[in-house]
Amino acid sequence: MTRFTTVADFDAALADLPAADAEARAAAAARQARLTKPAGSLGRLEEIALFMAEWQRSERPRIEDGRVLIFAGNHGVAARGTSAFPPSVTAQMVANFRAGGAAINALAAVAGLSLTVVPLALDLPTADITHAPAMTQAECLDALDAGAAAVTAGLDLLVPGDMGIGNTTPAAALCAASFGGTARDWVGPGTGVTGAALAAKVAAVDAALAHHAAATTPFERLRRLGGREIAAIAGAILAARHARVPVLLDGFIVGAALAPLAVAQPAIVAHCLAGHVSAEPGHARLLARLGLAPLLALDMRLGEASGAAVAATVVRAALAAHDGMATFDQAGVSEA
Amino acid sequence: MTRFTTVADFDAALADLPAADAEARAAAAARQARLTKPAGSLGRLEEIALFMAEWQRSERPRIEDGRVLIFAGNHGVAARGTSAFPPSVTAQMVANFRAGGAAINALAAVAGLSLTVVPLALDLPTADITHAPAMTQAECLDALDAGAAAVTAGLDLLVPGDMGIGNTTPAAALCAASFGGTARDWVGPGTGVTGAALAAKVAAVDAALAHHAAATTPFERLRRLGGREIAAIAGAILAARHARVPVLLDGFIVGAALAPLAVAQPAIVAHCLAGHVSAEPGHARLLARLGLAPLLALDMRLGEASGAAVAATVVRAALAAHDGMATFDQAGVSEA
Repeated sequence: MTRFTTVADFDAALADLPAADAEARAAAAARQARLTKPAGSLGRLEEIALFMAEWQRSERPRIEDGRVLIFAGNHGVAARGTSAFPPSVTAQMVANFRAGGAAINALAAVAGLSLTVVPLALDLPTADITHAPAMTQAECLDALDAGAAAVTAGLDLLVPGDMGIGNTTPAAALCAASFGGTARDWVGPGTGVTGAALAAKVAAVDAALAHHAAATTPFERLRRLGGREIAAIAGAILAARHARVPVLLDGFIVGAALAPLAVAQPAIVAHCLAGHVSAEPGHARLLARLGLAPLLALDMRLGEASGAAVAATVVRAALAAHDGMATFDQAGVSEA
Repeated sequence: MTRFTTVADFDAALADLPAADAEARAAAAARQARLTKPAGSLGRLEEIALFMAEWQRSERPRIEDGRVLIFAGNHGVAARGTSAFPPSVTAQMVANFRAGGAAINALAAVAGLSLTVVPLALDLPTADITHAPAMTQAECLDALDAGAAAVTAGLDLLVPGDMGIGNTTPAAALCAASFGGTARDWVGPGTGVTGAALAAKVAAVDAALAHHAAATTPFERLRRLGGREIAAIAGAILAARHARVPVLLDGFIVGAALAPLAVAQPAIVAHCLAGHVSAEPGHARLLARLGLAPLLALDMRLGEASGAAVAATVVRAALAAHDGMATFDQAGVSEA
């Protein structure tokens, strides 16, 4: 399995991405053409089946070990009053995940996904990105590697998610640093801030962008502007690519974790489906820059992989039709 | 249960629609406000929970007896070459549904919905609507009543669907007659027709509109321009309203069945969620006229309730979160 002990490990993994299996995709496409429906009439469900086939390297892809992986971290910049909730809520929500009481517990269960929660040094918030790097090199590598370590053998769908009070602030900073624009282009209400808190958020992102303008590599951007859960998500997605595990992306935080990687290596998103577009305004812009079209648009903005978990039911539906339908010959149905 | 023996039965049922339960909705909204998430952060999942609550008259709505009901019919106008498939495919697909080999079998299973197929006189196509009423009064009442009869006690979600080679032609005619516009505004490729077949379809709809211009009541429009499966869908949705069973709408055919009812009585859609917007171009226009925002947009265009069945997984996710999540107090999570 892919692990990240050194920055060189990370750079090498990002530089040398495996490609999809064109043969499995072609076999799945040939099967789709024989199923009892007008050609193309299942729309994006057909695309999903082909995508899953090419990454699982199977004509008939499956979700038998689909996993929601929630990484949690705390953020020094939250002390600037950028969130509607106190930082103590990160740990409280980790307890809520473990007790089964959060939205993602219910949504993962409906989608038939297991749920793993990985808290990352919650009592040690990252440094305030307005005037310091969020993490040391060792801290960032630890977070990336925690993400990679959670991608275990046998997984057939990875659904990464986040919990971290204040994390839309570093996410906006990562997007702006990666794709350009000012804080105002990428900052939104997050959990619901307005007025002075929103202004504090914009100011924090602008300050962080100015302070870390020299960071231009994917690793340095993650380290200086990100957070532990954000780096872990990036590490998990990159490790999943090397294990050829398809990934279903959640909202703004998960997308922002990919942003610095995608600027350096746009092909990083090839094994990813965008599960949904968040109500957080920067997310639609981010998906456009990543070149991804979301499966769902349900005005969700919770994080926790919640939007992607709902999208996983659509992926499951796509695979069920692909696998379960009869062909024209089998069913004795006349063709067009 | 609501049944339709006379035209007066139908008119009376449409004229006197029961309203939603505001108390159950308020109780569900109060519960939503206490769940461990930022207010509003589950977006349309929250709306769905409130909608289901107000129609099931329960603070915690459920789907324990959700049913896909597919009505099938044949269409005389199909002899004009308006479809890519021969009319024999309608009966072949009914057999495919019963054998479990169609898309809807797989999709209903993923959504945890039962499937009932109701073929309606498949060896007796409706008359050609370009120069005759599709059905006699008795035939149309039989079809409406077949729809109503299939809405049995205990249902908690109804997902009506259609099978009928050629049925996008009468559907386009119903939309144009109900909401105005010409054939070109409402006709699309259906199963995939282009060129001469598409031109034949446009011509057939224009001829039907001219021939039946005097039909202005919901019943007469259904009878003259519709089809058996279309009338049955209308009957099922109207009967569901009187049984306070929420309805999840599929695509263009299901929406077109509602069109003549909605013009006379716009409140008919209050117990309906739009499951998806079809790739059939008239459907987006139709949903706008019905005042409904679709849950999904996946470029599907199959009918069979297939789009709504995928949307049912979203409804199930919404109810699971509503029912299963802990409150702030229960979880010991701090509030904003």
